[in-house]
Amino acid sequence: MTIREVAKRAGVSIATVSRVLNRSKPVSEELKRRIEQAVRETGYLPNAVARSMIQKRTGLIGVIIPEIANPYFSGLVEGIESVAHQHQSHIMLAVSRKDPRREMDLLRIFQARQMDGIILAAARVGGELRRVLQSLTIPYVLIGQRPAGLRAPCVKVDNRRAACEVTTHLIGKGHRRIGMISGPMWDLASGKERYEGYRDALGEAGWTPRPEWVAAEESFRLQDGVKGMERILRAKERPTAVFCACDRMAVGAIQALESRGIRVPDQIAVAGFDDEEAATMIRPRLTTVRHSPFEMGWKATERLMATLRGEGSSPDEVIRVGHGLVVRDSTSGGK
Amino acid sequence: MTIREVAKRAGVSIATVSRVLNRSKPVSEELKRRIEQAVRETGYLPNAVARSMIQKRTGLIGVIIPEIANPYFSGLVEGIESVAHQHQSHIMLAVSRKDPRREMDLLRIFQARQMDGIILAAARVGGELRRVLQSLTIPYVLIGQRPAGLRAPCVKVDNRRAACEVTTHLIGKGHRRIGMISGPMWDLASGKERYEGYRDALGEAGWTPRPEWVAAEESFRLQDGVKGMERILRAKERPTAVFCACDRMAVGAIQALESRGIRVPDQIAVAGFDDEEAATMIRPRLTTVRHSPFEMGWKATERLMATLRGEGSSPDEVIRVGHGLVVRDSTSGGK
Repeated sequence: MTIREVAKRAGVSIATVSRVLNRSKPVSEELKRRIEQAVRETGYLPNAVARSMIQKRTGLIGVIIPEIANPYFSGLVEGIESVAHQHQSHIMLAVSRKDPRREMDLLRIFQARQMDGIILAAARVGGELRRVLQSLTIPYVLIGQRPAGLRAPCVKVDNRRAACEVTTHLIGKGHRRIGMISGPMWDLASGKERYEGYRDALGEAGWTPRPEWVAAEESFRLQDGVKGMERILRAKERPTAVFCACDRMAVGAIQALESRGIRVPDQIAVAGFDDEEAATMIRPRLTTVRHSPFEMGWKATERLMATLRGEGSSPDEVIRVGHGLVVRDSTSGGK
Repeated sequence: MTIREVAKRAGVSIATVSRVLNRSKPVSEELKRRIEQAVRETGYLPNAVARSMIQKRTGLIGVIIPEIANPYFSGLVEGIESVAHQHQSHIMLAVSRKDPRREMDLLRIFQARQMDGIILAAARVGGELRRVLQSLTIPYVLIGQRPAGLRAPCVKVDNRRAACEVTTHLIGKGHRRIGMISGPMWDLASGKERYEGYRDALGEAGWTPRPEWVAAEESFRLQDGVKGMERILRAKERPTAVFCACDRMAVGAIQALESRGIRVPDQIAVAGFDDEEAATMIRPRLTTVRHSPFEMGWKATERLMATLRGEGSSPDEVIRVGHGLVVRDSTSGGK
């Protein structure tokens, strides 16, 4: 279906249809209704546009993040904010506290409060969340992960590949005993995928993860890094390098080593993930993976805005943001 | 006016009035209207309760903060979230980007989107903001600072006293040449009051601030600390101690010293404010002022909830949260 057919069916010019769709000029209610009907009948446009023609935009974008005291999510929100600002929109932010029930509540609240669209960084993805998302009548974009079987745009980093690269860097430094402090496996992006990347790299070297060198923690806080490292240090034979699923955990891991007088990187090298501000605050400076939560937020919002303009491409598009290994002192020197 | 008089005027029992006010049991619309009218006529209750009787509660609290990538504000939001959660409420968070116009827009949006109340951490306080706040018909609590002449509850730290204490600590360590990297003076709480506390302490010792040792930056980022210290180091005679208006600036100041090979605290002692996580991440560990943004968020929300229940005490109450000096390595040793 083309705009020409919509115009023909509504009995107006293409310019008029375009004017109504872009709201570039006011038109009569009667004319608007006729064009809307033609749009619906021809199926010319994605739902979002037909909808945004019918509903008035509120200029509000709902954003749901699992936690707030985490630079990853504040970077994300800053990216979202920047694009929203360019589009004269405001964001309404809600924190799910990693509680799937709250997440689902919040999705419904945002819809009821007439957000134009939603950006969701889900803590866990399951079938129930998928069903709530499928029931939404406003557009949304996911960040980081997507429930299986859901057709929706998703912005993400290639966590698996990046984790593989940082582990391969450790192998290249001569390390043969490499541990990992990981997050929870139900967090597909930062938990599971980063662990898989670590396993991939070991696999390429012909090894498998040693259970006593892998600490899977329930969250990504500094204190989890301390705990994880303490657990790993109980192994009879210690690893010479430990990859941590995020920088905050790596900072905790280094603190645990420091408090035992174990030198980083000479005795145990440590690498993180995220390149937070803390990575260059601590000594030794942290080797880590740089990616940009700001860019993720930015791209997710651009995508949402495109959908609102009716320009959405494939509905289950995966939008990747780049990453890069940043080698610093915490893994310097060879083994 | 007492509840008895409301009951008498409405021609119902006290128990019925109480039931309507607390919504503990459904009553007929007609009865509700009669009691509401009696409440209005007798002036028995604070506006908020009369209002919450008329409007249905939405269980949503609007929160406005100036920026998100700052642990101070994320701590605040966590405190707010915790109390909101206990009251089966959700928070809708918006970021003003320190733009007074956005702040005022957001206040209006929150009211239009039927928040039960608003918690505002204003970036700047001026007459225009005061007028918008005065026009609100929903209750609100301020955090950190309050526009002059506005009667509204406000939760804050005694920044001036705390800044005086940390400066006095430096004097006690034998320092005679003490500089400061401050924030902008339009930020009354973290900018102006912390500078005044520094000046108070010098004043008690019989000194006045030396302009070449005071760097007033436009924001509170790490990079502002770097810039501020670089500026101070240009002075012919250098200070032996520098107090920074926040920890992030102190981290930047220490990085600037480190990059010039100036030892902390031996050559220049550095103190911060806020006791962020970074304060113990860096070496030397940072002397700073501990206070709890979480507690501020917590207390602000408790106060808002009390107002919603009609239990508000004095409308222009100032609720103070505690603080304490934490002495660490960055100011250890005497001069």
